[in-house]
Amino acid sequence: MAEYSSILLENAVEALAKLPGIGKKTALRLALHLLGEDDLQTEQLADALLKMKHNIMLCERCHNISDTPVCAICSNPRRDENTLCVVADMRDVLAIEHTASYNGLYHVLGGVISPIEGISPNDLKIAELVERTHAEDLHEIILALPATIEGDTTNFYIYRQLHDFPGKISVIAKGIAVGDTLEYVDEVTLGRSIQNRVSFKS
Amino acid sequence: MAEYSSILLENAVEALAKLPGIGKKTALRLALHLLGEDDLQTEQLADALLKMKHNIMLCERCHNISDTPVCAICSNPRRDENTLCVVADMRDVLAIEHTASYNGLYHVLGGVISPIEGISPNDLKIAELVERTHAEDLHEIILALPATIEGDTTNFYIYRQLHDFPGKISVIAKGIAVGDTLEYVDEVTLGRSIQNRVSFKS
Repeated sequence: MAEYSSILLENAVEALAKLPGIGKKTALRLALHLLGEDDLQTEQLADALLKMKHNIMLCERCHNISDTPVCAICSNPRRDENTLCVVADMRDVLAIEHTASYNGLYHVLGGVISPIEGISPNDLKIAELVERTHAEDLHEIILALPATIEGDTTNFYIYRQLHDFPGKISVIAKGIAVGDTLEYVDEVTLGRSIQNRVSFKS
Repeated sequence: MAEYSSILLENAVEALAKLPGIGKKTALRLALHLLGEDDLQTEQLADALLKMKHNIMLCERCHNISDTPVCAICSNPRRDENTLCVVADMRDVLAIEHTASYNGLYHVLGGVISPIEGISPNDLKIAELVERTHAEDLHEIILALPATIEGDTTNFYIYRQLHDFPGKISVIAKGIAVGDTLEYVDEVTLGRSIQNRVSFKS
């Protein structure tokens, strides 16, 4: 006999439980929830997942996730085409877009250099980045990679690859978070925020 | 511009975030996970959900979830047809099946009487239970409802409805959980476990 008295329910639970962070108990709760709702909800969910999986592509310019060959950011004429922000992951694009502090373009590397995870520079879109510095009229490249050893390594690698780039290369500031009290900030971050102090503006 | 630079991704995230306990951040994580996997995983998930939603039914005998008009438990000739366990929910059937301590049949009420939630006896499969006591050769009915006021009310209501049932009517034991130390057990439960003490068997 099936564990759940229904093979159909069991299959649904097993498929849901393959998702990260979803255990069998949560999967059962989700499946029973869908069973209790209109057919439409399940149909919309299945349809949205299939359409996403079958039709999404990577933007051929910035390698961000896109519905079209060139993504909505790259094809937006109101974005500043002279500034390029290099990020590890499409999630980082979302995070920076949410700040509403940046109006340039992006370049998504697809990760950071990590010998432990076997990610070498060739696995990342670094050659494509170098190519963009030749093909496009870029004035500044902002490196916005994670503040980890891997991120720093990747920053350094890219910096060397871009040795003939005539514009400015900058990295995002490291320092204490807005709202932080100093006593709980780790010493490396606090040290960096003192070294990288900026002029006080009232 | 779409929040996620992709309408397809946004639709998938929104559909996932309609599931209980799944927020937008988790939904995004799940959608990106599916994007990173084979097409097959998404297709199997969508297919399993649709098949479950379109084809699952309630067993016409015990009202448990089933793939067939009569469920696998009710149609299993090796189950004890003279014993019936009354539960509130199909999840309770799973819980009891996992104990491997019960080999009889079930009757799923679909809830318990709750004036606060507007659930009256007519909303539950109580008339169907009374009918089964006439139609089937039942020797014992075990009431396995939640140990709440609503569960107790429902137990009492069913007990009165079954006044002409010639067999035995029992309720599951309330007492301290296996592994409990007495000092942390609430007094009502501990009191019940003393009142309902059983002969010591070595």
